[in-house]
Amino acid sequence: MRLLLCDIGNSFAHFYKDKKVYKEEINDALEKYKELKLFYICVNSAAQKRVKNYKNWVDISPYVDIDTDYKGMGIDRKVLCKEVYDGVAIDAGSAITVDVMQKGRHLGGFIMPGFRAVRSAFASISPVLDVEFDFSVDIDVLPQNTKDALSFAALKSVILMIKDTAGSRRLFFTGGDGRVLSSFFQNAVYDEALIFKGMMKIIEENRLAKEI
Amino acid sequence: MRLLLCDIGNSFAHFYKDKKVYKEEINDALEKYKELKLFYICVNSAAQKRVKNYKNWVDISPYVDIDTDYKGMGIDRKVLCKEVYDGVAIDAGSAITVDVMQKGRHLGGFIMPGFRAVRSAFASISPVLDVEFDFSVDIDVLPQNTKDALSFAALKSVILMIKDTAGSRRLFFTGGDGRVLSSFFQNAVYDEALIFKGMMKIIEENRLAKEI
Repeated sequence: MRLLLCDIGNSFAHFYKDKKVYKEEINDALEKYKELKLFYICVNSAAQKRVKNYKNWVDISPYVDIDTDYKGMGIDRKVLCKEVYDGVAIDAGSAITVDVMQKGRHLGGFIMPGFRAVRSAFASISPVLDVEFDFSVDIDVLPQNTKDALSFAALKSVILMIKDTAGSRRLFFTGGDGRVLSSFFQNAVYDEALIFKGMMKIIEENRLAKEI
Repeated sequence: MRLLLCDIGNSFAHFYKDKKVYKEEINDALEKYKELKLFYICVNSAAQKRVKNYKNWVDISPYVDIDTDYKGMGIDRKVLCKEVYDGVAIDAGSAITVDVMQKGRHLGGFIMPGFRAVRSAFASISPVLDVEFDFSVDIDVLPQNTKDALSFAALKSVILMIKDTAGSRRLFFTGGDGRVLSSFFQNAVYDEALIFKGMMKIIEENRLAKEI
């Protein structure tokens, strides 16, 4: 089955084909792929308005059901949680979402701004804080300059939040900054295709491939 | 001694007179107070350009010396650390600065975006995340909706960073969001005038009051 899958986020559209993940600018992608047959999910309401009229694009969100009390969970988080099943699902993209799954039950989750947004937040406060992060900063040593002070806080605040939440659970990272974050944990895997694997599962379980 | 003190930050100018702290818009304040005699510190380079020409405004930064290896420490942080002397100095304003002092020696520190900047960062990611924080959120329970998910992360990430840094040290909070943060800690005090008390000490030690 050589399906084309698409996950439209807030900053980019991510695609999955032949077990490879790649990303494109959303507007470019919506134009370029509009006649193609594909399955998608979308959290971006502007993009959703456009693609819902694309007759070859199949939204799989109606088939995604998750056992949770959480209200207003994005479809990408739901799919990711489906795939993770037991452990902590972390998607480190525009935002960093952290969700706890226990044998198929979603126990809750939280959202932090992604590193790019934090970087912009610093820049908006003062030009002095308009500095690139250095993710090789030592998070066990108190910083001695501005670049380290910002990098240390941006990175370590996410790490501490995940550690505090996870306990002994396994950690499943995805998203553009997932790899660097996963390197700070034991018991962690990084898989850039995690959401797409969840989408594939939903497509197979609901025998959707024949629709396309 | 009924001095007027001013601390010009990135978002506001804070004043101290007769043991009271109040804040004003920076541009308004620079116009309104320009003929008055006062002592000031300033981290805002645009404002600094203006006030350095005010003949009645005395910049106390040349008198502030701190024992540290940190490069590029803002004058407000230095003054605060002088005042704290032993413990953790936390100024929760536009940015949240956290500095560790040990018997007059500055051991290092870090900087997080302030809550207002984090709120804007979320809003910039998606309209879905453009939500006011609720600081009464229970930080010991996994969130079950967007508002709690954002509030929980914004608040708890700062709390965990401070806890991790502080160990058993005493905590000294100041700044607009200092009061709410201090309520999550034992061994913490909140004092909105902490920086001004540091300024007073520097003025007294250097006998600057006669200059004005």
